[in-house]
Amino acid sequence: MTVSDKSLAQNLAVLLDKIRAERPLVHQITNYVSVNDCANVVLAIGGAPVMADDKDEVEDMAAIASALVLNIGTLNSRTVEAMFLAGRQANRLGKPVILDPVGVGATRLRTETARALLREIKFAVVRGNISEISALAGNAGTTRGVDASGAEGNAARVAARLAEMTGSVVAVTGAVDAIAHAGQLLRVSNGHPMLTRITGTGCMATALTGAFCAVTDDYSLAAAGGLVCLGLAGERAAAGHQGIGSFRAGLLDEVSRLCGRDVAEHGRVHVE
Amino acid sequence: MTVSDKSLAQNLAVLLDKIRAERPLVHQITNYVSVNDCANVVLAIGGAPVMADDKDEVEDMAAIASALVLNIGTLNSRTVEAMFLAGRQANRLGKPVILDPVGVGATRLRTETARALLREIKFAVVRGNISEISALAGNAGTTRGVDASGAEGNAARVAARLAEMTGSVVAVTGAVDAIAHAGQLLRVSNGHPMLTRITGTGCMATALTGAFCAVTDDYSLAAAGGLVCLGLAGERAAAGHQGIGSFRAGLLDEVSRLCGRDVAEHGRVHVE
Amino acid sequence: MTVSDKSLAQNLAVLLDKIRAERPLVHQITNYVSVNDCANVVLAIGGAPVMADDKDEVEDMAAIASALVLNIGTLNSRTVEAMFLAGRQANRLGKPVILDPVGVGATRLRTETARALLREIKFAVVRGNISEISALAGNAGTTRGVDASGAEGNAARVAARLAEMTGSVVAVTGAVDAIAHAGQLLRVSNGHPMLTRITGTGCMATALTGAFCAVTDDYSLAAAGGLVCLGLAGERAAAGHQGIGSFRAGLLDEVSRLCGRDVAEHGRVHVE
Repeated sequence: MTVSDKSLAQNLAVLLDKIRAERPLVHQITNYVSVNDCANVVLAIGGAPVMADDKDEVEDMAAIASALVLNIGTLNSRTVEAMFLAGRQANRLGKPVILDPVGVGATRLRTETARALLREIKFAVVRGNISEISALAGNAGTTRGVDASGAEGNAARVAARLAEMTGSVVAVTGAVDAIAHAGQLLRVSNGHPMLTRITGTGCMATALTGAFCAVTDDYSLAAAGGLVCLGLAGERAAAGHQGIGSFRAGLLDEVSRLCGRDVAEHGRVHVE
Repeated sequence: MTVSDKSLAQNLAVLLDKIRAERPLVHQITNYVSVNDCANVVLAIGGAPVMADDKDEVEDMAAIASALVLNIGTLNSRTVEAMFLAGRQANRLGKPVILDPVGVGATRLRTETARALLREIKFAVVRGNISEISALAGNAGTTRGVDASGAEGNAARVAARLAEMTGSVVAVTGAVDAIAHAGQLLRVSNGHPMLTRITGTGCMATALTGAFCAVTDDYSLAAAGGLVCLGLAGERAAAGHQGIGSFRAGLLDEVSRLCGRDVAEHGRVHVE
Repeated sequence: MTVSDKSLAQNLAVLLDKIRAERPLVHQITNYVSVNDCANVVLAIGGAPVMADDKDEVEDMAAIASALVLNIGTLNSRTVEAMFLAGRQANRLGKPVILDPVGVGATRLRTETARALLREIKFAVVRGNISEISALAGNAGTTRGVDASGAEGNAARVAARLAEMTGSVVAVTGAVDAIAHAGQLLRVSNGHPMLTRITGTGCMATALTGAFCAVTDDYSLAAAGGLVCLGLAGERAAAGHQGIGSFRAGLLDEVSRLCGRDVAEHGRVHVE
């Protein structure tokens, strides 16, 4: 590996500044649980969110946006159709598409929908937790078990396998995040357990990744940017909260207050 | 009645601890106004929320969940169909189903939908305000007027009547809540007027009731658990708020900070 | 012009007190991004929000409400049909209808839907930003350029043109807001740049306007009421915030804390 950890964090700082300078439009077709947080977190990082999910307009919207985020948290037949239309349009126009396969593995509909999306659309980044990414990667881990062990090793293995299957950057988030692509592995260790105690933080990480993908072609770095920023904001919000309501507000506060220097100095990302 | 008020509150404390230990999955088909609060309040009490409302997955989701909450706040033909499918599935599998008949009485669609749900699905608990439950109970109160008077007496009467009609536990929330089932009446007097000044607190009470139903077969006690916890959190959040925005955040804070001892000592529930 | 600025602000104070006394029902068919904020802001100002968007109930709901707000933020064919039904019903019953043409100009669907709504429904108020209102007013400004210049002049010109085309009060919000109707122009200069940094503040301004329209027939004044109240609350929330999460909560706090005297003394509205 040729880059040091320090220079990775510094690269993220440059991207953060770029988002704030360019204010890219991030189109999201997402769930109605965390949709407000997903819009506000994109504003907090400096992007411009737009939510539109009708089949008669998603192609127009994808055409003017700089990135497209597809999140199946509360999927239904109407919005899934829109996801395919928007995703294909973004692919045609060379715009990055990011997938959050929420709840894959829990129901057949989710698993089949996510698999169909992966077959028909080329994703820049797929971000999920270990259980979601495992459900998409099939029985990963049965053959490569020697080079890694425990939860972290498993995350890396599953991420690498889905990355290999799809050609996408695959980010598995957990206590330590694994970002795999083309044989390379990044680790992000920012974060805080409080992030698991409110709804939608996974969705927010994916939305932030969308904002980063809008300003760089290095989608591994973009995923790291999303995860470092949410993780760092989570660490800071956890310091002063009084419970999950103030943590939720504080998390948005801290994302909006992040500056390049914060990311350069406190971003914990390294090549493995 | 054989239980004292003190032991009732202590029983609720045991259930709260059980929710936190077991982290039951609570499946909600609900409205898009308060859905984020309903997810976060279930997390705050210690449960695991899942929102899924597509007809092609709700039976799968109901099968893996420990309780199902149906809330008609922003009902439409697509989600109502999903409610019937999920509700029947939960009934088949012996899982508790909780109904929040939001706005029943305001439109024909709401009243007819709620009545159809009550006919076809067996509910563990129905929770609504006096106007909603009255609309479902028909012209209650015209004959039993002697044993109660005023708003509180009316709530008890209407709750008892719908409980008799449906076999469900019926909770009517107001300044003092009435929980009726099989001739028994519980009263919960935790709460604060600020709870009426933000949207979704009724929905949140129902969501919490769902979490309690997931860990006990005593659904009257479960309803009391939901109402005591939201009421107690409301009392505490009202102490420090600066308006409805900080009250809303504070309410989630306080639910997440409740411990068994708080409930045992400050829960105001008694058998009448 | 016959009214002084001071008396305009005092008139708004009277309307605010009237909202709090009458608690009018404000029916909103709106987007799923800011719907919770739109419900809470109506509660904060003293109204009673109701969200209902199914075609089989919107006419019933519009009939019992005192004002109807149509917001196309996340429009789809199902909700657009409901908007037409509800809008026509409100027109028949003489109830004010308010339009928020979110994102008009961004996609063909939005522009065509908003135009069709304007053709078939009589709106009391249309509120949007300069880009949205320009898209509806056609190539405004090409001929009337002499009497105004810069962004503010442009806002007034575009508002006046759409007002002329539709007969509605048209409010264009920005650093200074322009409210045009029948050759008259009001300016509102309350507000703060932080209002552009969270999602849904435009929608909230429209929702507040709906609450004011419910208590007066002077829809220019009603629009001024909505914009003064949100702007004033924004100024106050901006004073103490820690980022966009606390600003969002603070904004609702401050709306709920506004009293008639605040509006009379600090409302900045004048006739131009």
